[in-house]
Amino acid sequence: MERIAPIGSEFRKDPVTGRWVIIAGERSNRPSPLRHYASPVDNTADCPFCPGREGMTPPEVLVYRESAGGPEAPRWNVRVVPNRYPALRIEGNLEKRPEGLYDRMRGVGAHEVVIESPEHGAEPSQYPAQQMVEVINAYRDRVTDLLHDVRFRYVLVFKNQGAAAGATLSHPHSQIIALPAVPARIEYELQGAGRYFEYRGRCIYCDIIAQETSDARRVVVQNADFVAFAPFASRFPFEISIVPRTHEPFFWMLTRRQMEAMGEILQDVLRRLRLALKNPPYNFMIHTAPPGEPHPERYHWQVEVIPKLTEVAGFEWGSGFFINPTAPEEAARHLRDLDQVMEIPPGHLLPGHAPAGGGR
Amino acid sequence: MERIAPIGSEFRKDPVTGRWVIIAGERSNRPSPLRHYASPVDNTADCPFCPGREGMTPPEVLVYRESAGGPEAPRWNVRVVPNRYPALRIEGNLEKRPEGLYDRMRGVGAHEVVIESPEHGAEPSQYPAQQMVEVINAYRDRVTDLLHDVRFRYVLVFKNQGAAAGATLSHPHSQIIALPAVPARIEYELQGAGRYFEYRGRCIYCDIIAQETSDARRVVVQNADFVAFAPFASRFPFEISIVPRTHEPFFWMLTRRQMEAMGEILQDVLRRLRLALKNPPYNFMIHTAPPGEPHPERYHWQVEVIPKLTEVAGFEWGSGFFINPTAPEEAARHLRDLDQVMEIPPGHLLPGHAPAGGGR
Repeated sequence: MERIAPIGSEFRKDPVTGRWVIIAGERSNRPSPLRHYASPVDNTADCPFCPGREGMTPPEVLVYRESAGGPEAPRWNVRVVPNRYPALRIEGNLEKRPEGLYDRMRGVGAHEVVIESPEHGAEPSQYPAQQMVEVINAYRDRVTDLLHDVRFRYVLVFKNQGAAAGATLSHPHSQIIALPAVPARIEYELQGAGRYFEYRGRCIYCDIIAQETSDARRVVVQNADFVAFAPFASRFPFEISIVPRTHEPFFWMLTRRQMEAMGEILQDVLRRLRLALKNPPYNFMIHTAPPGEPHPERYHWQVEVIPKLTEVAGFEWGSGFFINPTAPEEAARHLRDLDQVMEIPPGHLLPGHAPAGGGR
Repeated sequence: MERIAPIGSEFRKDPVTGRWVIIAGERSNRPSPLRHYASPVDNTADCPFCPGREGMTPPEVLVYRESAGGPEAPRWNVRVVPNRYPALRIEGNLEKRPEGLYDRMRGVGAHEVVIESPEHGAEPSQYPAQQMVEVINAYRDRVTDLLHDVRFRYVLVFKNQGAAAGATLSHPHSQIIALPAVPARIEYELQGAGRYFEYRGRCIYCDIIAQETSDARRVVVQNADFVAFAPFASRFPFEISIVPRTHEPFFWMLTRRQMEAMGEILQDVLRRLRLALKNPPYNFMIHTAPPGEPHPERYHWQVEVIPKLTEVAGFEWGSGFFINPTAPEEAARHLRDLDQVMEIPPGHLLPGHAPAGGGR
């Protein structure tokens, strides 16, 4: 029986659904299957992401410094470093090979950490506006750079906030994974959007935005460039989509103006969730068309935000059929109603209203 | 804006992926988004599933009694009752209707609970063999009965064991949900199996069984009718598939002999997981072709068993791309190696070996 050399991890494709999985390499010793994720590191004394402890991470692949500082200034605003315990490794080629009816390839990819702030206790929804824009800028710069590597078919940007959402360090950070295959979820979205386009000749996401802003019951907040709403078929309570108003297939092509608008609305949504749900753990992820997508007129990038409030049980896992106890209309109304207790910069965010005064 | 009458819940279809979600009805009062699942009821004094407290559940839809007792005997072995807090209701028709580009229908379906044993503290892997066969018989009887209702396109059978896996009562039970639509996961499996069949002219699951039993590295245990193995592209550590050896598309057509063989191998797998993982929470679910499937030659029913050991984080949610820290070969070897500490009825289960002596 042929064996792949143990290089850490490999990709395997489910032969039925086509879904790829990253499998840790076989080890010679016995597994310790009861290992659990570590508790978040909450004390700054041990935190590898705090300033002054840059040597605890691999060398940075990107850093933004305070403009006043110059190269000698130790003060950075955002750092991106390779993950010290990567699920994937950047070296080598994929060595795709079959094993009977199965397909596998080496675990080649990139796994990076975006350290969002030098402050250990900073809370993303409370960052100065410019800090969040810098984080988004770092996402864009890294995605663009990684996509120059032709081995990569997709770059995922996501954030796990809080231990229950999968974070193992509490210092604010997000993650970037470059993959040699398009994730199944994105494939299904591309296929569904493709079917709609073939039938109606329009981008389904653009049509959703038009319907949501006109209906307004599920809209949480809007600005000139983005709409945040609770999706009609939300799988989870208080799930939120943040979508650019104009047709934009590729995340990494967003402009400086869009970065600022995205930072504003993302922070607004996170503030509302924090207020409504008492600082919940959450995940967010950026969905984008893959590089080289032949039909960019069909897909629309977006940010998906999911507070982690419920356990996912066997029914959901096995079926892909979700039971959501909170109607999205109810979640959106609850989040909109926080306008009174939030400080909204005047003239910027228009909760539940289109800038031109349409809707609701 | 048209509104569906608040009848408790409704189905909504994601317009892009086609995935259906069950959404709780809108309530007039504010949501309490921080509600959590209740801790399991562990004391028999409060347990609605214990004998003598049958009045605490809705009237049973199926009961198996001890054969010696007759109708007067209070002693039952297995009871099936409607869920007291159902996600779906059996009354009414679907009233499918569009809302712009969205589709919704009333939350019509069935949601039943299979009380697997009269004993509150019974452990499924330790049931007397005949008890597990009775449970499987109850699954089959209820699925068959529910599929007589033409509104239902699919019936899901699943079990959540342990609070972390979604169980809210500790008295051993499983659940049955009849749905007016085929779950997305099953649709993707049917599509994938269909593509394989069109290309190769064979059932992909039959080919997987042939490859797994010949390779043997991922096989956990086998008997004359079923094979249990760790799937090549396992999403989770110690995920196990239990598959009939012969081509069987519909779960509910299993014979008495197959029920006995399924009970045997399911209990064996659960015992191994219990030993290896120190009594883990787990989910299992039965996958089957839907009634009226036009291509039954393409699909093969199976049981999916997933111990809940890890948190699913943003990366997995957002992408459908899973990172599994335990290789399935490693998990299978670990479970096979438990032979020495388990009492195996001689001549029945053949861990890792085909009955004819092939493989490994």
